[in-house]
Amino acid sequence: MPSIKSKHLIRIQDLTNDEIYAVLENAATFKEINERPIKKLPTLRGRTIINLFLEPSTRTRSSFELAEKRLSADSLNFSASSSATVKGESLLDTAETFDAMKVDMVVARHKYGGYCNILADHMDAKIVNGGDGIHQHPTQTLLDLFTIYEHFGRIEGLTVGIVGDIYHSRVAGSLAPALASLGATPIFIAPPAYQPDVPEELGAQVAYTLDEVLPELDVVNLLRIQGERAQGLYVPSLREYSALYGMNSHRMNNLMKKDAIILHPGPMNRGVEVTAEVIADPRMLVLDQVNAGVAVRMAVMYMMLGGDGDVE
Amino acid sequence: MPSIKSKHLIRIQDLTNDEIYAVLENAATFKEINERPIKKLPTLRGRTIINLFLEPSTRTRSSFELAEKRLSADSLNFSASSSATVKGESLLDTAETFDAMKVDMVVARHKYGGYCNILADHMDAKIVNGGDGIHQHPTQTLLDLFTIYEHFGRIEGLTVGIVGDIYHSRVAGSLAPALASLGATPIFIAPPAYQPDVPEELGAQVAYTLDEVLPELDVVNLLRIQGERAQGLYVPSLREYSALYGMNSHRMNNLMKKDAIILHPGPMNRGVEVTAEVIADPRMLVLDQVNAGVAVRMAVMYMMLGGDGDVE
Amino acid sequence: MPSIKSKHLIRIQDLTNDEIYAVLENAATFKEINERPIKKLPTLRGRTIINLFLEPSTRTRSSFELAEKRLSADSLNFSASSSATVKGESLLDTAETFDAMKVDMVVARHKYGGYCNILADHMDAKIVNGGDGIHQHPTQTLLDLFTIYEHFGRIEGLTVGIVGDIYHSRVAGSLAPALASLGATPIFIAPPAYQPDVPEELGAQVAYTLDEVLPELDVVNLLRIQGERAQGLYVPSLREYSALYGMNSHRMNNLMKKDAIILHPGPMNRGVEVTAEVIADPRMLVLDQVNAGVAVRMAVMYMMLGGDGDVE
Repeated sequence: MPSIKSKHLIRIQDLTNDEIYAVLENAATFKEINERPIKKLPTLRGRTIINLFLEPSTRTRSSFELAEKRLSADSLNFSASSSATVKGESLLDTAETFDAMKVDMVVARHKYGGYCNILADHMDAKIVNGGDGIHQHPTQTLLDLFTIYEHFGRIEGLTVGIVGDIYHSRVAGSLAPALASLGATPIFIAPPAYQPDVPEELGAQVAYTLDEVLPELDVVNLLRIQGERAQGLYVPSLREYSALYGMNSHRMNNLMKKDAIILHPGPMNRGVEVTAEVIADPRMLVLDQVNAGVAVRMAVMYMMLGGDGDVE
Repeated sequence: MPSIKSKHLIRIQDLTNDEIYAVLENAATFKEINERPIKKLPTLRGRTIINLFLEPSTRTRSSFELAEKRLSADSLNFSASSSATVKGESLLDTAETFDAMKVDMVVARHKYGGYCNILADHMDAKIVNGGDGIHQHPTQTLLDLFTIYEHFGRIEGLTVGIVGDIYHSRVAGSLAPALASLGATPIFIAPPAYQPDVPEELGAQVAYTLDEVLPELDVVNLLRIQGERAQGLYVPSLREYSALYGMNSHRMNNLMKKDAIILHPGPMNRGVEVTAEVIADPRMLVLDQVNAGVAVRMAVMYMMLGGDGDVE
Repeated sequence: MPSIKSKHLIRIQDLTNDEIYAVLENAATFKEINERPIKKLPTLRGRTIINLFLEPSTRTRSSFELAEKRLSADSLNFSASSSATVKGESLLDTAETFDAMKVDMVVARHKYGGYCNILADHMDAKIVNGGDGIHQHPTQTLLDLFTIYEHFGRIEGLTVGIVGDIYHSRVAGSLAPALASLGATPIFIAPPAYQPDVPEELGAQVAYTLDEVLPELDVVNLLRIQGERAQGLYVPSLREYSALYGMNSHRMNNLMKKDAIILHPGPMNRGVEVTAEVIADPRMLVLDQVNAGVAVRMAVMYMMLGGDGDVE
């Protein structure tokens, strides 16, 4: 069984390129298992995994939970409503408490970017970042990479546009460096207010209009316009955003490469960053991404917790 | 293993009479298994079932959840508090997301009557209606039928009074047509404002006072007075309702047949539709219904998901 | 397999001294199992356990839930947000409903002290008190006793100070009588307003200042200052409380016995009843208590539900 050297998966940089490809390969096997009537492996029987989601999440949490159950782990959910965990002061106590309960892994989502590192500093348990603040979302990156790799058979050499509010996106913060490290070319496509301060640190090029670079893109990754995290840094209106950066039939059919693909981390704002026509097009792979999500999370947990035996 | 032909169980009419009797027969076996110390079958190991309850529910949700766990399925809960699922716009995306995660079955409760049909139209997963708006609640009907059949050894030929707010009841909307189809005689007993617009479409006769028909009834099914769904269509007062339609010792001992039984979908409003004395009487079978609920839900899921092997 | 004679565990007095020691012995085995990579026993496979927590709780609920999962029970969570269960009127119906679903055990937490007794009176299921109002919290007592016994190799003859709001503490109400029964000497250390009305009924001595008795104590059990349950019965200020009754470096290093230990039921209010320096000291065993919590709960459920076979 190939394993992951880093104890935690907090940043995508915790994985080497070889480990990323090993995750993708294992995920392909898990994806196939997820097609079976009996989607169940005994691999993580008796391991305890806590889903500590202190920010609301539907698809990410359920994706992790399904992955855990299909690997036979014992999983426990914690949400923001559980009062003792939300008081900032007791973050440390919460971490030490779960550790004393002999939890093997914590999947954590929190609006504060350094949350997972604090957990990692104070716990024996392994930490998987389920999306922290505006920094990183490594399993989202892995499912994006899986979807790209599955479609093109390669990642190297591809040009990947990441369109939208890069500044506030935990998706972009993980994906761009991974793409750059694997030999692809990430381009941030956004108005200046949505661009990160130092894009080159993330290994990305920068463009200010979508139409200018769309013809070069192999992958168009549309970010969700996230009002809740933007804190006032907006383009003048959603209508203007949509006109300049939204993916619509015109752009898809006239400007985009015929064999390019479109990704979106979901949930989509129909009519803002993407139109219903684009969603219905076979080149829009948002559901393949969701499907890949369960598989890559199974692969990550399998490789990090060192389950017994082979994946069959 | 007998199976159910319809892919989904949204309306009770999705089942043929033969299938209804097959559910009752399997449920009898599951009921007996539920009496054992070890209430567990490997039948649905590796199947994924989502409980998507967008309306609060205590007993129905826990009944389904127990049924799923006792059949060894992997089950996930979704409630209204999970914000992404409650926005009306994302209903479709939620359905497609769960489908992409390779969910085998969705048990859904929603205040909107057509919710399950929308899910069915957009999902590969099988849909079980856990009670939708004011229309249907097919597994409640199956547990009512089980309780009647277990007590009388037959359903055909029985006269079943359904007492209360028929208009707003999802219980009555499923039960009456099933009874009619199985050769029983359902009678809606309610003031005019609580009667449905076209009772004969549901296969039911109509009566406006309880005392008038009580002596003919084999089964008295008391509906819960549901303030939350009634939206102003009330009888003048709860006291008056209770006086005219409530089940009390006087009615039970003097007007009701000696060997009739009393049902209630729960939770009961003591002192409104039923008095404490009636609840304590052995002819009140509300707890038998709860017990039957887990068993018929096990039977339905077993038959719909085509578990391997026999029930032992 | 040693078993527990009382059907329910509502008060610590439901256990004989021999049974308490048997719980501690079994817990030692479970503690060791919890150190293994595969923390899973088939002991309670097919048993149904409901966690009915009608008061918020993080660590107690998750401790029970982990214990249940590691023993392979099917467990269901109920919280205060599930509306039907919180209406006082339906408490009885809720109990009877779960019973009709053939639940084997209910772990209940409620702010009303007599809640577990009502459940016990109306259910076939076995009841475990997960902390009720201001009266009892028997599994907390068992984990305290485990921690003391593990450290000293005995309980008899030890002097145990219980410091803080004894009056409103469910911790003190269970622990003091158990200590007294096992031959230890419990001392309540608190200002008069925090002392119980009849401390001798709980088998405890009384002291009004910490410094006076600290040199005699083998165990210093610090209670959490629980604003939420105190209802106005306060010491003048938290600062004064801390000065008079808080555990700090000075007290720990100059007044406390060198080989005494410090306990706390958690979560701790840093800077109120305990300082950061004390928390960091190896004699503060709060995390050992958390660890023991899962083990004693496994032992209690194992012994009460009469699992098959031996613990291996």
